[in-house]
Amino acid sequence: MKRPSKPLYNSASVPEKDCIFCKIVAGKLPSYRVYEDANHVAFLDINPFSKGHTLVCPKRHGETLWDMDEKEIADVFMVASKVSTAIVPAMNADGFRLMQNNGEAANQAVAHIHVHVIPSKLEEKGKFGRIKLTEDEMAGVAEAIRKEVAKLG
Amino acid sequence: MKRPSKPLYNSASVPEKDCIFCKIVAGKLPSYRVYEDANHVAFLDINPFSKGHTLVCPKRHGETLWDMDEKEIADVFMVASKVSTAIVPAMNADGFRLMQNNGEAANQAVAHIHVHVIPSKLEEKGKFGRIKLTEDEMAGVAEAIRKEVAKLG
Repeated sequence: MKRPSKPLYNSASVPEKDCIFCKIVAGKLPSYRVYEDANHVAFLDINPFSKGHTLVCPKRHGETLWDMDEKEIADVFMVASKVSTAIVPAMNADGFRLMQNNGEAANQAVAHIHVHVIPSKLEEKGKFGRIKLTEDEMAGVAEAIRKEVAKLG
Repeated sequence: MKRPSKPLYNSASVPEKDCIFCKIVAGKLPSYRVYEDANHVAFLDINPFSKGHTLVCPKRHGETLWDMDEKEIADVFMVASKVSTAIVPAMNADGFRLMQNNGEAANQAVAHIHVHVIPSKLEEKGKFGRIKLTEDEMAGVAEAIRKEVAKLG
């Protein structure tokens, strides 16, 4: 995609070699991985908004949507949509949000493009803040999602 | 896309003939329209999170992402990405968010799929709530965005 002349300011910018999502993609940092294909990895957000909150990352490093070409943009949202059809039943949720933040001003915390998939339950409607899960809970959530992902084929 | 067997509950569901976004698409209800192509319309959110907050709607009625096929999903996010490259400079913003809510539990208020494009400024970082603009301000915002959209070609 044509990037406007003014780039998006991002104080989280780091060289690709220091990018924590690149390290997670490469398996050099641990994550609760729930999905992988040739060009994407999805793993649990460690500061989730809800149980099952997942990040879908393209493997190729790029900071924002403006760094991706049209096919890459289409693909990452397709993967997010696909993964949502596993996360929602795995979490017994009633709906979900996709969120994708670009730049410091939009609270993008890691400067490697990622799409948030956030399952939502009716009983928690209106509550929207970070929750804390134990390591065991995170592992259980990841396992439940992987089981549903395996059914997607 | 294969829709999971459990549909997303949405109390905002209405028959297509009563859908306010279908009426906006058809020009039967007014809106501050900033973009249109064969399959999409984009217009300002009347309860914006920031100046320039825009909704991108597929013209075809569907309630959530799970009602769309793969091409429709790719297309609506491509349009949102494209429109972001007009909205950010038009609003002199520093970043932007894409948000797409599915189902009552995810606070989806109108049961016609739409992608939020929300420009963000560094000086407003961390503030995230509805703002109120006058009709004149809304018209000015729409005009500024349309001018940038015209440059996209």
